[in-house]
Amino acid sequence: MSLRRVTFAMSTRHFIYTLLVGLSLASFSLAADERPVKRAVGVVLFPGFEMLDACGPMEIWGNLKDQVTLITVAKSAGPVVTAQGVEMVAQKTFADCPKLDLLLVPGGFGVKKLIKDEETLIWLKQRSAQVEITMSVCNGATLLAAAGLLDGRPATTNKAYWKMATKPGPNVKWVTQARWVDDGNMVTSSGVSAGIDMTLHVVSSLFGQRTAERMADEIEHDWHRDPSWDPFAAKHGLK
Amino acid sequence: MSLRRVTFAMSTRHFIYTLLVGLSLASFSLAADERPVKRAVGVVLFPGFEMLDACGPMEIWGNLKDQVTLITVAKSAGPVVTAQGVEMVAQKTFADCPKLDLLLVPGGFGVKKLIKDEETLIWLKQRSAQVEITMSVCNGATLLAAAGLLDGRPATTNKAYWKMATKPGPNVKWVTQARWVDDGNMVTSSGVSAGIDMTLHVVSSLFGQRTAERMADEIEHDWHRDPSWDPFAAKHGLK
Repeated sequence: MSLRRVTFAMSTRHFIYTLLVGLSLASFSLAADERPVKRAVGVVLFPGFEMLDACGPMEIWGNLKDQVTLITVAKSAGPVVTAQGVEMVAQKTFADCPKLDLLLVPGGFGVKKLIKDEETLIWLKQRSAQVEITMSVCNGATLLAAAGLLDGRPATTNKAYWKMATKPGPNVKWVTQARWVDDGNMVTSSGVSAGIDMTLHVVSSLFGQRTAERMADEIEHDWHRDPSWDPFAAKHGLK
Repeated sequence: MSLRRVTFAMSTRHFIYTLLVGLSLASFSLAADERPVKRAVGVVLFPGFEMLDACGPMEIWGNLKDQVTLITVAKSAGPVVTAQGVEMVAQKTFADCPKLDLLLVPGGFGVKKLIKDEETLIWLKQRSAQVEITMSVCNGATLLAAAGLLDGRPATTNKAYWKMATKPGPNVKWVTQARWVDDGNMVTSSGVSAGIDMTLHVVSSLFGQRTAERMADEIEHDWHRDPSWDPFAAKHGLK
């Protein structure tokens, strides 16, 4: 082997080595900064939250074990009573909740009291600013609106209690006919079971259509893929 | 007024009075013995139960506050971890659970261990014999089958894990194509979200179609009213 060939072979090897290290570092940096390997999904619980608003989406997030870490968070850790009377456990407090990648706010009659609770509104504002996507189900949007997070943006909420749910958000562009509204980093869904359809939509955006279809099939859910599908708007006199 | 007319008037009044008292007693006895004013719905929790199997139906039972008392029950009271990782609280133990009118058994990967657990199987058998209707969601039916409660009866279970779910019930008349199977005092549903449709069906049987429709509309749920609606059977090669 000539000296020239050896030099060439070495520099080629060096080039490939440098390339591989570079690529690996680049992908690591991408994974760490933009596309976390495992996303932390925080679900906010509060007394009187609507059980299915939280549990529908959590069923799906919790089944994505390789992609997601599911965290329930409340003002105080421990049992939190649902609007249906049974209790779910909040694993973390507002204070000790780790960094989140996705934030989910359910609704329920408990929202009425919470829209006046400064501690909750401030926490929601701070966390929402840090996550990729903030999601709400039902009048969870009322809470986001009260925190000023939906000002000037399109959003939806539950149809059965539309007037009450939209009142604390006079500057929100409320959409009456929508299963969910995707406004980039803010995705709001209609009432209760609509949260499942919205979650599948977000899963599809983050992990691809195939993953979302698999999740829907696994829980034998008839996924409404069209965000404008909403027979409940008319049923509640909103169309 | 002649004596005859007075006697007639008195006996008519006496007759009406007796009739009213009788009717009122009869309706009281019916209410107390056969149609309890408020039914106690017991939902069995165990480590690794599928969250939506339990929470879908509980959303509806919990919203029927005037007709239903919702009770979560497990071997031990306190937090029970779901298959999705978060926890729900069991209010009662098997031992201190009050008399139930309806019993709901969710599925989940935890069933695999539970079908060998004598204490659970015996408790299910005892309670099932006392209630009006025993319901299961997903492979909750596997648990009922293991307890011998479905022998010789038509039933369904989840479609994604059909073989595994039906194995402990060789004497069950398994129905592959069904959102749910109503066999009188035993109503079994297909996987996960099918539990919501089944629950609305049972609510309709107990409290009328209008109440069930109201419940479905309130949670903005697209209720599949046809028990043979089941695209998931074919998707999982069962048709």
